[in-house]
Amino acid sequence: MKIVADNLRITKNKIQEALLNCDAEPVKEIVRKSLKPSVSAIDINTGPLKKFPVKDMQFFIEAVQSVTDLPVFIDTSNPEAMEAGLKSSRNRTIINGFSLEPEKIEKILPLAGEYDADIVGFLLSPDSMVPADADSRLEAAIQLFEQVQAAGISPEKLIIDPVVPPLVWDDGIVQARAVLEVIRMLPEVLGFPVKTIAGLSNLTTGLNDRYRKTRIEQAYIPMLAYAGLDYLMMDVFNPETLDTALISGTIKQETIFSWEMIPGVSDR
Amino acid sequence: MKIVADNLRITKNKIQEALLNCDAEPVKEIVRKSLKPSVSAIDINTGPLKKFPVKDMQFFIEAVQSVTDLPVFIDTSNPEAMEAGLKSSRNRTIINGFSLEPEKIEKILPLAGEYDADIVGFLLSPDSMVPADADSRLEAAIQLFEQVQAAGISPEKLIIDPVVPPLVWDDGIVQARAVLEVIRMLPEVLGFPVKTIAGLSNLTTGLNDRYRKTRIEQAYIPMLAYAGLDYLMMDVFNPETLDTALISGTIKQETIFSWEMIPGVSDR
Repeated sequence: MKIVADNLRITKNKIQEALLNCDAEPVKEIVRKSLKPSVSAIDINTGPLKKFPVKDMQFFIEAVQSVTDLPVFIDTSNPEAMEAGLKSSRNRTIINGFSLEPEKIEKILPLAGEYDADIVGFLLSPDSMVPADADSRLEAAIQLFEQVQAAGISPEKLIIDPVVPPLVWDDGIVQARAVLEVIRMLPEVLGFPVKTIAGLSNLTTGLNDRYRKTRIEQAYIPMLAYAGLDYLMMDVFNPETLDTALISGTIKQETIFSWEMIPGVSDR
Repeated sequence: MKIVADNLRITKNKIQEALLNCDAEPVKEIVRKSLKPSVSAIDINTGPLKKFPVKDMQFFIEAVQSVTDLPVFIDTSNPEAMEAGLKSSRNRTIINGFSLEPEKIEKILPLAGEYDADIVGFLLSPDSMVPADADSRLEAAIQLFEQVQAAGISPEKLIIDPVVPPLVWDDGIVQARAVLEVIRMLPEVLGFPVKTIAGLSNLTTGLNDRYRKTRIEQAYIPMLAYAGLDYLMMDVFNPETLDTALISGTIKQETIFSWEMIPGVSDR
């Protein structure tokens, strides 16, 4: 299970200000802090960048790639910003992402072909709603898979995101289990070892208690790993959850174990 | 997933001394400390009690049941001590346990019928070795299941323990995954919703680093829950792993969630 840092987000005041002031340092600082040995990629969550999609996306790409060669996920719903990111990125770049929404299929999906990039597909209905259960998520996955192939893109480029729900939803816990089932069943349902990704932060939306948040994430991460998740997008500034993710991936994938695979307290 | 406290063990010096001095207080103290709201049963690990199996087991049963009405698991390999425990216990009592070892089948298994008690069955070979892989564990499960029925005991009384391996074994990590697969597959393989139990402490045998130990257990517990484990036997004095077990069970079983299901820092 590869870990993708989602700490770089335009919703943070510091990052909004950095963009307004054209000051790359706060962006670089977050990326530098995210470069833990267990982190495999950086999510650049810029939001839609409606005013200056090209210039502003270039600012982010340049800032991030001045401090790391890691792959980047470009996390925007704006096709213009997405294309600017793909054009200016030197690192391996993943489109994050598209869904069954017609505008996304028309304007985002083709970029995966044009720029030979992997692309995240969200299991949402065409009107961007979260499906009610595991079956409707699997149905959405089949349709995403068909759209990718219809666009002439290799299914190996698709990374499916089953959309982790907030537990506080009335049926949050049932949905959280549905996400696990979908991850486990996708390769069989699609007849193809499709890659999967999940964003952890949604799970505890609305919760400000750090102890509870950490414990909930520590319970769900190993379940995601065991279900077969390929990429976990998460806050990598919390060493407790980061270590849980690292160890979960190790138990799921490695064949030989040593205590030294796990960072001790003294290593942090 | 029900939690069984395994903190009462004769391997602790304090408990050995308590037995020698016929002083019930240290035993009671450990049991009182184990009575967290999320704990469903107490394991009484007495060892074989070779010298005075009846008197010494009665000492433990009396000490434990003077402070709790919770079900108890009697954890001894000595049939005489086991029977003394079953005779003197007032609480619901689970035999822990038997295996395919001929002496265990002959002397321990029949006690489940005589005393109408649930019984733990270890997935070990007849010479008490840990099976090499998931298939041989499943084969042992089928044989245990047959032995239970041959003894005229309802299969509902059987609780299968797939035997969690130490991760430091050469193939520890592969075995740890095999245990998860066995738990998941047992109901289908046996054609019966057989109950399962796992002891967590084995996993980190040989590791003295508390941080690493906690992180490893926190990664494996949710996998056990997700695989469908019914009883988790564990050290309940570590609030971090105990909360992970509680939340894992909640995600696996509950349909409605509230933050208050999880103890906050202030509740401990």
